[in-house]
Amino acid sequence: MSKALTIFDTTLRDGTQGEGISLSAEDKLKIAKKLDQLGVHYIEGGIPGSNSKDIEFFDRVKELRLNAKITAFGSTRRKNSLAEHDANLQRLIDSGAQATSLVGKSWDFHVHTALQTTLEENLAMIYDSIAYLKQHGLEVMFDAEHFFDGYKNNPEYAVAVMRKAEEAGADWLVMCDTNGGTMPHEVSDIVAALGGQITGTARLGIHTHNDCELAVANTLSAVRSGAEMIQGTMNGYGERCGNANLCSIIPNLQLKLGYQVLEEKQLEQLTNTARYVSEIANVHMPVNQPYVGAAAFAHKGGIHVSAILRDARTYEHIVPETVGNHQRVLVSELAGQSNILSKAQKMGIEFDPEKESTREVIGRIKDLEHQGYQFEGADASLELMLREANGEVRKLFTFESFKMLVEKSAGKPVVSEAFVKLNIDGNSIYTAAEGNGPVNALDNALRKALISYYPGLNDVHLSDYKVRVLDDKEATASKVRVLIESSNVENSWNTVGVSSNVIEASWEALVDSFLYALLGQDKREGYEEIQSVERGLVNH
Amino acid sequence: MSKALTIFDTTLRDGTQGEGISLSAEDKLKIAKKLDQLGVHYIEGGIPGSNSKDIEFFDRVKELRLNAKITAFGSTRRKNSLAEHDANLQRLIDSGAQATSLVGKSWDFHVHTALQTTLEENLAMIYDSIAYLKQHGLEVMFDAEHFFDGYKNNPEYAVAVMRKAEEAGADWLVMCDTNGGTMPHEVSDIVAALGGQITGTARLGIHTHNDCELAVANTLSAVRSGAEMIQGTMNGYGERCGNANLCSIIPNLQLKLGYQVLEEKQLEQLTNTARYVSEIANVHMPVNQPYVGAAAFAHKGGIHVSAILRDARTYEHIVPETVGNHQRVLVSELAGQSNILSKAQKMGIEFDPEKESTREVIGRIKDLEHQGYQFEGADASLELMLREANGEVRKLFTFESFKMLVEKSAGKPVVSEAFVKLNIDGNSIYTAAEGNGPVNALDNALRKALISYYPGLNDVHLSDYKVRVLDDKEATASKVRVLIESSNVENSWNTVGVSSNVIEASWEALVDSFLYALLGQDKREGYEEIQSVERGLVNH
Repeated sequence: MSKALTIFDTTLRDGTQGEGISLSAEDKLKIAKKLDQLGVHYIEGGIPGSNSKDIEFFDRVKELRLNAKITAFGSTRRKNSLAEHDANLQRLIDSGAQATSLVGKSWDFHVHTALQTTLEENLAMIYDSIAYLKQHGLEVMFDAEHFFDGYKNNPEYAVAVMRKAEEAGADWLVMCDTNGGTMPHEVSDIVAALGGQITGTARLGIHTHNDCELAVANTLSAVRSGAEMIQGTMNGYGERCGNANLCSIIPNLQLKLGYQVLEEKQLEQLTNTARYVSEIANVHMPVNQPYVGAAAFAHKGGIHVSAILRDARTYEHIVPETVGNHQRVLVSELAGQSNILSKAQKMGIEFDPEKESTREVIGRIKDLEHQGYQFEGADASLELMLREANGEVRKLFTFESFKMLVEKSAGKPVVSEAFVKLNIDGNSIYTAAEGNGPVNALDNALRKALISYYPGLNDVHLSDYKVRVLDDKEATASKVRVLIESSNVENSWNTVGVSSNVIEASWEALVDSFLYALLGQDKREGYEEIQSVERGLVNH
Repeated sequence: MSKALTIFDTTLRDGTQGEGISLSAEDKLKIAKKLDQLGVHYIEGGIPGSNSKDIEFFDRVKELRLNAKITAFGSTRRKNSLAEHDANLQRLIDSGAQATSLVGKSWDFHVHTALQTTLEENLAMIYDSIAYLKQHGLEVMFDAEHFFDGYKNNPEYAVAVMRKAEEAGADWLVMCDTNGGTMPHEVSDIVAALGGQITGTARLGIHTHNDCELAVANTLSAVRSGAEMIQGTMNGYGERCGNANLCSIIPNLQLKLGYQVLEEKQLEQLTNTARYVSEIANVHMPVNQPYVGAAAFAHKGGIHVSAILRDARTYEHIVPETVGNHQRVLVSELAGQSNILSKAQKMGIEFDPEKESTREVIGRIKDLEHQGYQFEGADASLELMLREANGEVRKLFTFESFKMLVEKSAGKPVVSEAFVKLNIDGNSIYTAAEGNGPVNALDNALRKALISYYPGLNDVHLSDYKVRVLDDKEATASKVRVLIESSNVENSWNTVGVSSNVIEASWEALVDSFLYALLGQDKREGYEEIQSVERGLVNH
């Protein structure tokens, strides 16, 4: 059971078929580097010659000198022609990739309908193409498209395709569930059946899609029936419902089924790698994504929280740190007092559960959540509120007003300006600033007003900005919730604002962000240095 | 194989444990009604008496006279006490629910660590509680928490728990994989083993969680080993990584494994129901969600698109309409000309692939996508561009300027005003309007300017507004993409705008929305009626 398995990542090729996913050559190179650090064995980079990004990728990836083998994807030769005249096969060779995944048909229906050729010609296309690539020294994975549908429709032909590929010298025979419609018990049976009929040295691989929400299970079924290479993508990116998600498959194989996949230290990079890829791909990672999601080890129910504080194994199937994730306790209206107190404890805030002020702040959190605030994604706003209740936060400035103007005339660029009036230590401060957008202008004006008193804000910048329209059933009067992520050199934090006005909501989150940044500094420099901290403006 | 199965929906109870999910009593009632129309057999509404929302739900749901049985959730009696003195059990009876799911411990580790009692007392707690509820005429599902972990650790005790529950009169014995860490082959084995040791009339149920991305597969394994009740949630909502997703399980069981679950007509409501629940829960549905997601039957790769146009079975595992979904062809930079032409064809636009203007518009789409536009989620903006290229769109107005002002003073409500200057048919029009937010103010001012010329806009309203910050690696100079969903009585459509200024991006999407609304009207009323249509302002 400690057999080694081979991981083949196709995020850069099949993953980019996913809706909303688009990677530049630079993005692809960054991801390849990160995947290599994670320890995947093959990285499929794209289709050589299909577009300028892929050409650039294959050209530049050599300079990275990765451990993983770089793989190029292509199809068998065109029907009724010679492999040596096939421009696509030539591009695979010219790409400089060490390995190639060559896709061919194994479902008779597809041979007739999509290729529009004979079953015999398809076999010849497969044989010729593989033999030609092998002559040129490439390692060849033969990707049998629709293998499971093909096997169910015509098992003899599907097996004949695989035997022909092996005869031509393919190193790997990869069974693809291209349409994602196969059930796990069918995968078990079919992989075992094929295994019994492959007599040479070629090894089996599995490539599944998630159309039935079974891509991970189908991969495990195939491995348990003898497949040794796993093809998949980070976060399950891919066409339609996505490819098999390596971020779930790898820990399942290694932690649950006892296979040897990655080094322990590499597995601890899984969460970080998954999030990095989602950042580069600019795709929001679902909080509930298994193993690597922000909520994968998050606890909300009051009873569950009491139990995990006693022993995490009560509601956690693995130690989150094994995959580089960590436990979180969510604050929500379902939360009992115990959730909020344990959250406070993790923040290092001492709270007396018996005090009236504790009951008050819990009531206030519930009330704000009712208004649409969400503290699950805005720890910094929550921490400010808890510290304020605990008397740790004092007056920073007195808000007087802000104005924000956006102006656009035909043929001219849009202009954004903001004006902020504050009072600090009895001094009235009035600033004006431009920005490339309204929030940026507000940010600049507020920063200008504060910075001479609080130079630590120089470091702070906005790293993300999200807007969510809250469905309060009154279309245009809808409230919006703004979440701002801010960071300085050593830290990042999230704050929230809610209003029916997106500018006001942004202002709230912005003010919280600066307050939080200064709170951190106070702690470093001693509370005495702060003149005044107040959150009076923010409508909390 | 056409055995009937029972669907138990716990969206309203376990689903609300998911991060970011919060349902009011009104929301819960709406969802219950919709689930009843879908045809689920049991609806678990919540925990009676735990909070005011659940009290209101159980009170009001009776008036709906649903076919589904309403179920209340609770725990076995407290240790070392009497069932008849247990306030929680009393609340289950008082709730008026027809059935109750009663959770109890079946993992010896949990009995010791979480309950902190003896194995014998736990058995007594289970027996007494079930017997008491049965005396009061309730149907009882016994939810054996951590059954699989319990069985792996101490199979005799886990089975003894189930036998004790049956002895007390439980109608269903539900095996819960509470921590979501069990593998499908283990589920198969353990369910079969339990089945062999249950000798009475109680039937088996399965309740899984998705921590290993295997909740759907584990449910199918349990059903194939004899479980007859499936507990899960819509869209897989639930704590941590979520519960078993009924939206995938139901079609898998019915369309792939031949079980009888819902009527055909009901199954066609699946997509609609899933999206309705996501709307009410105010949780974004991932586009790649199996069966019901917007991308579940979406095709992006050029070769795939050619094949599905020939025969959809080439890349679709079921007919999308079976579950109420439909095929989509995505436009993207990966798209060949064939994708865009087939999209145009679906929109009823005639395009000559040979014309220079066709090549031009394809080049323009690619260029805009490079700038950050995304037409996959903005069909209306795409259609406008295609019709414009085809000479079907004419000048609507000439843009001169807009101004947008947001002002906030301490202690006063925030004010938003917009000023729009246009020229229609040589007449200069200058309007001003307030709004409860900047986009609403712009919407109102633009509408005011256009409405006397185009009264059809009276019907149109904004139904959704999304903002995405595009990661162009320059924090505050980031571009934002705004997607607006608009609707009138008969239709809804999506438009897009991109700018580093959120107000300008919103304006673009807003203008597109109105242009599209009028385009629809032209088609209905004849093109002659339109004076002028232009998209000159929009930086396309």
